[in-house]
Amino acid sequence: MTNTITVGLLGLGTVGSGVIEILNDHKESIQHKTGCHVTIKTVLVHNVSKSRNLPTSTTQLTDRYQDITEDPEIDVVIEVMGGIDHTLTILLEAMEKGKHIVTANKDLIAQHGAQLFETSQRNSCDLYYEASVAGGTPIIRPILDGLSSDRISKMMGIVNGTTNYILTKMTREGVDFDTVLKEAQDLGFAEADPSADIDGLDAARKMTILSILGFSMPFNLEDVAVKGIRGLSLSDIKYANQLGYSIKLIGIADHNETGASVSVEPALLPVGHPLSSVHNEYNAVYVYGDAVGETMFYGPGAGKLPTATAVVSDLIAVIKNLRLGTSGSAYVQPQFPKHIKTRKDQLTKKYLRLHVMDQPGMLMELTKIFAQYGISFDQIIQRQADHNDERELMMVTHQVSEEDFDKAYNELEALPTIRSIDSVFRVEGGE
Amino acid sequence: MTNTITVGLLGLGTVGSGVIEILNDHKESIQHKTGCHVTIKTVLVHNVSKSRNLPTSTTQLTDRYQDITEDPEIDVVIEVMGGIDHTLTILLEAMEKGKHIVTANKDLIAQHGAQLFETSQRNSCDLYYEASVAGGTPIIRPILDGLSSDRISKMMGIVNGTTNYILTKMTREGVDFDTVLKEAQDLGFAEADPSADIDGLDAARKMTILSILGFSMPFNLEDVAVKGIRGLSLSDIKYANQLGYSIKLIGIADHNETGASVSVEPALLPVGHPLSSVHNEYNAVYVYGDAVGETMFYGPGAGKLPTATAVVSDLIAVIKNLRLGTSGSAYVQPQFPKHIKTRKDQLTKKYLRLHVMDQPGMLMELTKIFAQYGISFDQIIQRQADHNDERELMMVTHQVSEEDFDKAYNELEALPTIRSIDSVFRVEGGE
Repeated sequence: MTNTITVGLLGLGTVGSGVIEILNDHKESIQHKTGCHVTIKTVLVHNVSKSRNLPTSTTQLTDRYQDITEDPEIDVVIEVMGGIDHTLTILLEAMEKGKHIVTANKDLIAQHGAQLFETSQRNSCDLYYEASVAGGTPIIRPILDGLSSDRISKMMGIVNGTTNYILTKMTREGVDFDTVLKEAQDLGFAEADPSADIDGLDAARKMTILSILGFSMPFNLEDVAVKGIRGLSLSDIKYANQLGYSIKLIGIADHNETGASVSVEPALLPVGHPLSSVHNEYNAVYVYGDAVGETMFYGPGAGKLPTATAVVSDLIAVIKNLRLGTSGSAYVQPQFPKHIKTRKDQLTKKYLRLHVMDQPGMLMELTKIFAQYGISFDQIIQRQADHNDERELMMVTHQVSEEDFDKAYNELEALPTIRSIDSVFRVEGGE
Repeated sequence: MTNTITVGLLGLGTVGSGVIEILNDHKESIQHKTGCHVTIKTVLVHNVSKSRNLPTSTTQLTDRYQDITEDPEIDVVIEVMGGIDHTLTILLEAMEKGKHIVTANKDLIAQHGAQLFETSQRNSCDLYYEASVAGGTPIIRPILDGLSSDRISKMMGIVNGTTNYILTKMTREGVDFDTVLKEAQDLGFAEADPSADIDGLDAARKMTILSILGFSMPFNLEDVAVKGIRGLSLSDIKYANQLGYSIKLIGIADHNETGASVSVEPALLPVGHPLSSVHNEYNAVYVYGDAVGETMFYGPGAGKLPTATAVVSDLIAVIKNLRLGTSGSAYVQPQFPKHIKTRKDQLTKKYLRLHVMDQPGMLMELTKIFAQYGISFDQIIQRQADHNDERELMMVTHQVSEEDFDKAYNELEALPTIRSIDSVFRVEGGE
């Protein structure tokens, strides 16, 4: 093998230029660590005539992806262009030609991971994707290697920076959802179409990847129950605080003998929980292992250089494998068949906020419904509502199955003394 | 290669029995991940006649280490017996016989790392030591692999659980150092002789290891400036809180163009800093990379199963290397010569608490000394002291070089209006 590693780069947007910058900046250190010199030979772009900062004068631009997949000199393809179907075609063709892949594309891995991994194994190609979850925060490797001797029973992740930024602002400044979203869009922290972030899809993709790795089961995006934070009320943040909780958009994956469940939803976390102190656009993944107990991995969830760092760290791993002749050996097939928990086996605590008519016996009537399904309460706050004849109630239950909670909820909805059920959230992180 | 990996275990204390427990408990998953079955053939103990729980009826006990180092059937030696000189001899002999090593021994790695690594490379042996820093928290691999494409400019670690437990208790319950230490000893969280913990030596060993890896320079334990928390005053914790800081025992390693410095010392951290919310016996390492920005790795710093998890995760890595034929390839020699910062180049903020005579012009006299060395203040609190003619002053400076601060401190000490300089701490984590 020669001492030069030749790279084809798909995409020259923010992360792509970050990759070039880091490769350039860390030339000596990469050479020291791997014994190799890295050259970016070809870059795939939409418009080859636009002027750009290229790594060297010999780097060529192309708008034909075959100039990369079919170039026998190219060892590794770095994919930072995004997109799904077309990108999948390119990566599959590249692997059929024996090229190793580093990608930052969570959508692709979450949706077509199985096919990509199968192709990589069949062609003895490496396929690395650390940047696809939590940007610059190393999380894939700690789960795969650092905790490889443990049984992971729970993962909770703040894996979307935009929503965490919005919730932090709402909590700290008491500003409502729409105002903060608008502000985040003006600052470029949120997209013009923010749905993938605020409706939880982006987080769900990342949780799919984490769940496959952490539980060694072949999950799909469709297995994730998703609820976002659109229109989340400031009142709930305030009441949650009074009850000793913060509200975060969390990906929750848990796993026990009854099966696994994966969701993304706004949830209440005790203020002392490590995830509660993850603020602004930061990401963190909290991992509970049977033996190791609580661990957490914290860092930037996005950004040009953080994401590019994860990409280039993957590239270094690929180069080491190439030198050692161990390419394509990193992936381990999921060990277990997928086994999703029924709603009966999904046990959680719940927070509810509701408006009720202020009349004698109301609370008794209400708690009677819950008691019927064995649901008792940890905390209740009752306060005067805006209307004189109403009361606002905030309640936190003890552990309850989703099935029982559904039943109680339906009866509750039918109760004439209940004016509105304003919010229901999961409560996490307690004993 | 056969599908059985034969292990010799040095030590059958807490961590040793944890290793046996985890190997037993995770048999199938290890077999799935590595394609190998692990057997513990021989265990080195002090007293072979004591009755014990052994993994299998065929496991043999010995008090002669050569029964392990000279047994050609043994592939991997797991060292969880502690100790330095004798243990070094055993591990060196084991590697000369081609055996791979997994160790949890921070003292050994901090003091004899260079010799151990040289021997491992010469014999193409693996030498893994994830458990030596921060117990079950994966931190070595994230630094070596996850951030391999970044330049780490700063690491701050809460890497000693005992002292963090003591400081958490003092902060939360307002109890003084001696009382909490006694309590921690009664509960078994602190040793009968607590000096290695509370005087900072244990943390210094871990920071030595982290600095070698993070900065790729050959540091020794002697390069670490160590100050512990013995006798730390409750008053400082309270005042720090008023000023918006918590006090933690932190290992601080930083590195820029003027060189590197490594220390362990009690320091003030803003309450909003990620390390400030690391409580009780938990450990965390905060890593600042030029490109990635802030990351943090959090988890249990000690304990039977967490530490054993790290050991067995290392064992899995060793087995994978054995199967792939890539043993002995993980270690990279430090890239740079060691370059320690002079005190002139060490810039920090300082917190001081002092008792001064209550007389006109006192504060002017005092600040004049600081001004002389270009030291200005970020915050000052003055309060009535216990004696009527005294005032107590808490001051936080802006950035200052250690050299200038030393000079100002000496002049301060000579000042007749100053009754006592009670405490001086580093202030970290600001902009």
